[in-house]
Amino acid sequence: MLFKRVESEGIAHYSYLVGDKNEAVVIDPRRDCDVYVKMSEKQGMSIRYILETHRHEDFIVGSVELSAKTGADILHADGHLEYGYGKILAEGKRISVGRLGIEAIDTPGHTLGSKSYVLYGPEGETWAVFSGDALFAGDVGRTDFMGRDRLEEMSGLLYESIQKIIGHDDGTLLCPAHGAGSVCGDSIADRVWTTIGLERKLNPKLKHGGKERFVSATAKMLDYPPYFRMMEERNLVGTPRLTEMPSPRSMSPKEFKYASKDSIILDARTELGFGSAHVPGSISIWADGIPSFGGWFLPYDRDILLVADGMEVQKTIRYLARMGYDNIKGYLVKAMLSWHMAGNASEGIITKTVQDLCKSIDNGSEDAWILDVRGDEEIAREGKLPYSHHIHITDLPERKNEVPKDREVHIFCGSGLRSMTAASLLKREGWKDLVVMLGGITSWNSLTCPLEED
Amino acid sequence: MLFKRVESEGIAHYSYLVGDKNEAVVIDPRRDCDVYVKMSEKQGMSIRYILETHRHEDFIVGSVELSAKTGADILHADGHLEYGYGKILAEGKRISVGRLGIEAIDTPGHTLGSKSYVLYGPEGETWAVFSGDALFAGDVGRTDFMGRDRLEEMSGLLYESIQKIIGHDDGTLLCPAHGAGSVCGDSIADRVWTTIGLERKLNPKLKHGGKERFVSATAKMLDYPPYFRMMEERNLVGTPRLTEMPSPRSMSPKEFKYASKDSIILDARTELGFGSAHVPGSISIWADGIPSFGGWFLPYDRDILLVADGMEVQKTIRYLARMGYDNIKGYLVKAMLSWHMAGNASEGIITKTVQDLCKSIDNGSEDAWILDVRGDEEIAREGKLPYSHHIHITDLPERKNEVPKDREVHIFCGSGLRSMTAASLLKREGWKDLVVMLGGITSWNSLTCPLEED
Amino acid sequence: MLFKRVESEGIAHYSYLVGDKNEAVVIDPRRDCDVYVKMSEKQGMSIRYILETHRHEDFIVGSVELSAKTGADILHADGHLEYGYGKILAEGKRISVGRLGIEAIDTPGHTLGSKSYVLYGPEGETWAVFSGDALFAGDVGRTDFMGRDRLEEMSGLLYESIQKIIGHDDGTLLCPAHGAGSVCGDSIADRVWTTIGLERKLNPKLKHGGKERFVSATAKMLDYPPYFRMMEERNLVGTPRLTEMPSPRSMSPKEFKYASKDSIILDARTELGFGSAHVPGSISIWADGIPSFGGWFLPYDRDILLVADGMEVQKTIRYLARMGYDNIKGYLVKAMLSWHMAGNASEGIITKTVQDLCKSIDNGSEDAWILDVRGDEEIAREGKLPYSHHIHITDLPERKNEVPKDREVHIFCGSGLRSMTAASLLKREGWKDLVVMLGGITSWNSLTCPLEED
Amino acid sequence: MLFKRVESEGIAHYSYLVGDKNEAVVIDPRRDCDVYVKMSEKQGMSIRYILETHRHEDFIVGSVELSAKTGADILHADGHLEYGYGKILAEGKRISVGRLGIEAIDTPGHTLGSKSYVLYGPEGETWAVFSGDALFAGDVGRTDFMGRDRLEEMSGLLYESIQKIIGHDDGTLLCPAHGAGSVCGDSIADRVWTTIGLERKLNPKLKHGGKERFVSATAKMLDYPPYFRMMEERNLVGTPRLTEMPSPRSMSPKEFKYASKDSIILDARTELGFGSAHVPGSISIWADGIPSFGGWFLPYDRDILLVADGMEVQKTIRYLARMGYDNIKGYLVKAMLSWHMAGNASEGIITKTVQDLCKSIDNGSEDAWILDVRGDEEIAREGKLPYSHHIHITDLPERKNEVPKDREVHIFCGSGLRSMTAASLLKREGWKDLVVMLGGITSWNSLTCPLEED
Repeated sequence: MLFKRVESEGIAHYSYLVGDKNEAVVIDPRRDCDVYVKMSEKQGMSIRYILETHRHEDFIVGSVELSAKTGADILHADGHLEYGYGKILAEGKRISVGRLGIEAIDTPGHTLGSKSYVLYGPEGETWAVFSGDALFAGDVGRTDFMGRDRLEEMSGLLYESIQKIIGHDDGTLLCPAHGAGSVCGDSIADRVWTTIGLERKLNPKLKHGGKERFVSATAKMLDYPPYFRMMEERNLVGTPRLTEMPSPRSMSPKEFKYASKDSIILDARTELGFGSAHVPGSISIWADGIPSFGGWFLPYDRDILLVADGMEVQKTIRYLARMGYDNIKGYLVKAMLSWHMAGNASEGIITKTVQDLCKSIDNGSEDAWILDVRGDEEIAREGKLPYSHHIHITDLPERKNEVPKDREVHIFCGSGLRSMTAASLLKREGWKDLVVMLGGITSWNSLTCPLEED
Repeated sequence: MLFKRVESEGIAHYSYLVGDKNEAVVIDPRRDCDVYVKMSEKQGMSIRYILETHRHEDFIVGSVELSAKTGADILHADGHLEYGYGKILAEGKRISVGRLGIEAIDTPGHTLGSKSYVLYGPEGETWAVFSGDALFAGDVGRTDFMGRDRLEEMSGLLYESIQKIIGHDDGTLLCPAHGAGSVCGDSIADRVWTTIGLERKLNPKLKHGGKERFVSATAKMLDYPPYFRMMEERNLVGTPRLTEMPSPRSMSPKEFKYASKDSIILDARTELGFGSAHVPGSISIWADGIPSFGGWFLPYDRDILLVADGMEVQKTIRYLARMGYDNIKGYLVKAMLSWHMAGNASEGIITKTVQDLCKSIDNGSEDAWILDVRGDEEIAREGKLPYSHHIHITDLPERKNEVPKDREVHIFCGSGLRSMTAASLLKREGWKDLVVMLGGITSWNSLTCPLEED
Repeated sequence: MLFKRVESEGIAHYSYLVGDKNEAVVIDPRRDCDVYVKMSEKQGMSIRYILETHRHEDFIVGSVELSAKTGADILHADGHLEYGYGKILAEGKRISVGRLGIEAIDTPGHTLGSKSYVLYGPEGETWAVFSGDALFAGDVGRTDFMGRDRLEEMSGLLYESIQKIIGHDDGTLLCPAHGAGSVCGDSIADRVWTTIGLERKLNPKLKHGGKERFVSATAKMLDYPPYFRMMEERNLVGTPRLTEMPSPRSMSPKEFKYASKDSIILDARTELGFGSAHVPGSISIWADGIPSFGGWFLPYDRDILLVADGMEVQKTIRYLARMGYDNIKGYLVKAMLSWHMAGNASEGIITKTVQDLCKSIDNGSEDAWILDVRGDEEIAREGKLPYSHHIHITDLPERKNEVPKDREVHIFCGSGLRSMTAASLLKREGWKDLVVMLGGITSWNSLTCPLEED
Repeated sequence: MLFKRVESEGIAHYSYLVGDKNEAVVIDPRRDCDVYVKMSEKQGMSIRYILETHRHEDFIVGSVELSAKTGADILHADGHLEYGYGKILAEGKRISVGRLGIEAIDTPGHTLGSKSYVLYGPEGETWAVFSGDALFAGDVGRTDFMGRDRLEEMSGLLYESIQKIIGHDDGTLLCPAHGAGSVCGDSIADRVWTTIGLERKLNPKLKHGGKERFVSATAKMLDYPPYFRMMEERNLVGTPRLTEMPSPRSMSPKEFKYASKDSIILDARTELGFGSAHVPGSISIWADGIPSFGGWFLPYDRDILLVADGMEVQKTIRYLARMGYDNIKGYLVKAMLSWHMAGNASEGIITKTVQDLCKSIDNGSEDAWILDVRGDEEIAREGKLPYSHHIHITDLPERKNEVPKDREVHIFCGSGLRSMTAASLLKREGWKDLVVMLGGITSWNSLTCPLEED
């Protein structure tokens, strides 16, 4: 028997490869899907089926790509949608993979047509449930995609769906489509493998006691990155194959400069490199932050140019491709080094560690305007800085005018990475006196600097 | 949080890498241990501890090697043994790894000092038990290492140990040191991930109802490959580091021939290549069969020479190193092709598919002496061939004289691979009229050829 | 400066990547062309140009593929052909790559429009000549592609072209499109790097003294593998991109058997595995022999199914793709092992080492019909077996009826590999009593067995 | 035949692997020598000999390491030295490798006992000369290692040695031990492959016309990095095997901070990351600059701690190992990100592009003290900045007091990388007002900013 979880970093997406004898199935494959083919070939298995738990909204599903490589049948959830590819596996229907059986059950709530899949072992035992975005470790799927009007309806549906899932024995493995860090749940737990039993015991969303309380606890509107709409659309019609896309080209500083006139520049280096020097006008999103934040700030309808450290170029392009960004036109060869040597000017953003700010706040004498771009829950969990102003980074484009232009602005997040993203966004809009606080709140708390009391 | 299982193919050994924040622990590492270092480094974690569940008898544990690379502390089970390295973690003692806790519990039975380790999550919940060779998926550890006299005592100890383990909640992950295919259990189930709940429901050894029945069901002597003694010894004193061993050298046919005078030749190609042509006197064990069968037929006190297909040379050497075979002197460059081109003679062993034998047995007219080298349980499970003689391959060296030298001998196993091993052993001892049946009993049953009725 | 030669094994094809500052050029790229992109990116260079020395006839040129990945301009030789892509670089025209210059010179003879390219270094010095198939190490290009009628004309053209090339200084590097082992020359020398000076001194074809003698020595018809026609056609119109081709699928024995009804089966294992057991009707061409022999015996207009050892599957597919074989439908998962276990019959071909034959020929008592499938030059170089019949393997399909069906046929080549190809071809046509001689003539000569005297 | 050049980046060291039939030889192997073993194994060759052209002074030769892996014989040059390993191959002696021959010739001058090796092809032709550090592309070896007193003597010896080498035919390949970028020559040309003919035509050092002029042109003292002494010593006694060295450990910020008390911190990130934030007291040498500059500024007798980007950690350690730095104790896990998050302070160094300076110099109004750390020849080649003070970076430790502490110091080099090294060295000694000019002179010249007239 073969059972592998494939994790896509960044979006914390989990897909699964399950096989027995010489057959295999993949649940919710990602777009760069060679990994499933190689693993199954090594075991002498052919991928026969591709199962989708729902129409994903946070990444391009790799079903079409993988099917083209393997000839596998694509079986959808969401029977009511008009897919451009594949077939539907209705509730109660079962496929077999070697001696294993997999049965579809309807578990709506996250989307209207979400399904889970129950895996039966060779002896007919219930072995695992692939719960998609219905039930996670320590969390449940968000229910706000149908809009505010249907929030409670969707949460109600999800409640019933979860009862179906946790009705299985405690010893059953629970295999969701996301782990900690995903935007598909509110606060997914950092529990790498989990079981029905562990969730029944530990999942705070399952402890509300009754549907009504569950609904009131989960029916809330969450952040909705603009790129979700694009993902939903593409996952419905079927995305063009990766191999049909033009590869981003390496560009000399001269070409890069020329092409940048009509493009958005994404700088995927970390906060320190960007702080020292970057191409004027660039947006800073460090490579590992792209799955979470790229979809908020990057366009699909304009060319994107990339600045990244040599070894991170391909990784960045891969991350972007997983989100359907097939509009990466090129990247700057040798990054800023070649930019500078070609005689081009760059700009910087000041970075500081927190010691001075800590002291001056302790003395009550701080003059800077402190901008905290963390999310609400982070602030609740990690503490609020005295005198700070809170604008979640994803709200910054809309609320930017709350930030003063005539004072020094100190920007805080958890580590300094998102602060630099925020700084780059503000700088593009004309702000000048920006300081990124290195180490962010984590550094602050390590030093036991003062927090605002509740 | 980081939680990875590392599987060593062949011996079906499972080791585990668990980390949180910037610390990690490895449970029962293998000797070629770069894999743990790389995985933990990628996450920014340092390996702080190495835990052993017991003194392993089927592979060289990599504790000393890994500790040399990382500076990690080695914590043993088996407090009564005099180890040449490391310290003991007593029952009830706990180490912490980031926000995680790991506590040792005594679970003797497989060995006198076996321990299991309970993993507690960040919220203090019981998340997993690393059960070593006490409890497997679908099986329990063997209890015969202390000899026949103490069999029942050890099974009794194991019964109590298992109660400790399965006393944890059903939803707890169960993480044993071996998967299906290992010789450390009788018949470990092909259930890749399991839980306390799944074992309570499915493990046949846990269904006997009471200690007495458990003891009578599990107290039995099993095959004991001769190399186990060597492993026990080395795992006690600490094995020399891999890097201190001389690397096997590539040898020209001339050098190989010269060196072969004082050496055992291991041919790690599959049955077909060996059947067509091999260096006279070679022992045939296909590469993937070495972890299971190498320890029965290969010596530690003589040089070993290797014949293997180009791309399998390093894998074969790695498999052998895991079993402590540091006496591989060299391998034949370009295998049989260079052997032949240098003008050397080779020998073959006849291979056949089963169709003719099937027919002749159906007609009751078969003259060949049929040797079946499968194990007892396989025969019970897959059926017995009519007119066949059964000698388990591991008993063949002792019982070889039961095989006639004056008749054609047809050799059967599950696929043909072990049959070729058996044929090579007999051929070294003077047998000549040997035929390996390709596809073995699997082919036989696919064709619905006749089986002996019970 | 960057200067890399990329060798494609098997066809002994040499392509070149040359770069300076941030620009690079590739001469005669192969179809699987990621290698050039990676090498140039690592140096921070963009590939600006792709040069072809002529319309290649022995492999699919990767110009279209590489241009799609990089945006590079394709510059052809052969100005008189109507290409479906690219532009012509006329004689005397020059491109620049950083501080380097490359100038086209007409060097017809191998084809009518063949070009060579002279590389000038930063100081304007002549540094290298890329001579395509005009001049090799120890050989010159064949001149028979325009047919027998124009042989002498073409050889005459080639003579003049070579004068142009060797007119450069002795210290100039000579960079041809092929190395030893290619079918594009008659007998290319095993001199891995060469210079104008070395060729002037050592190349036997340059020693004839005058055009007339050169023409009479080189104007000869050589083997013309049938796939050359297909290569010429595709290299003219531009081959579809690799990524648009369906990937060969892994097939279970059942699927494989079903698909084999309408397909040719290619067995890419070496002679020993094939000898022991193969799917009835298969053609044996060992993986590394495919570039040389695949084009003689494999069709473009029928599906091809593949049997290959696990680790050689992808390599075999890559080799076939380089020759434009995009009709590989699938491969047998786990090769013969799964075939046999599924209850299928296989067949074998007897293999023998040469000792017995050597003795019996020495005694003058050999009854077997000895078939030698080596080429003429090999026989001249390595010696002729007594009593042997010579049919070059590429002539075997046409001349097969010279081989008796009623006698044992012993097949000889250099090593045994081609003998098994020959045996498989004869077996498909009904021959039964075939024996492949392992080690071939190399073994024979190592043993100092008798050769026929001239 | 096998002929591969293996290039070690950074030190621009060339080693060579030459093989024929099943034998191979390596000339001047590097310490991380798996590459030779893998290449030769792939061809079915065994490495039989290791040749050294001289006792290298700029890297740890891998002879002992490679011999331990392969059993190859080590053959030295420098017969007068008392080596702790290997044997001497005297002038005129020849080894054979398959059909190839290699003959030693004495070519002293760079060192007293330097040898070159002439490679003869299968037909006895002179095919290549491995010239070690005697003759390079566009340069000759330095002759200053015996001290100023023997400078002219050594240059005289070298003159005679070079006559021996260039006495071979123009078409002979010339294979030196270094390429452009090495400190072993004065200014080695960027001519990737070269020949005797090309050198006779292009090498400026061969154009002086007579011994006397050659001596006066080449007898000069060059920079002598302090680590050379260590290399000479180790290459004489034989360096301990890499595998016997403890591996550097990943360290948490806390461990790193603790260990840093007794250690030197090397920061291998590029200038921009270092400029934004670094651990106070660190020395900045970007990874690719370590082979050239590490030996000037890093000690052998103190522990070294490393800060490097994740993917560059192993490369940096490898580069350091090649120079014998086996005293790397550990590296900071996740580099500065973890440092900051743990609440530690860091420092920065200001970086600027050149536009403003260009303007102010144009206006004659610049107040900053301009420090140019380039070498003499670079300044001669690329131009001298107006008002600048020149201290070559390798002289900076000795001449630092020429740099004012009470003025802003603008630091220039070719690109900005060495400037940051210089800035880090000055900062450790108490300088504060330092500015690194990004893009350096290359940027300056791209912008056509003013240069000092001669």
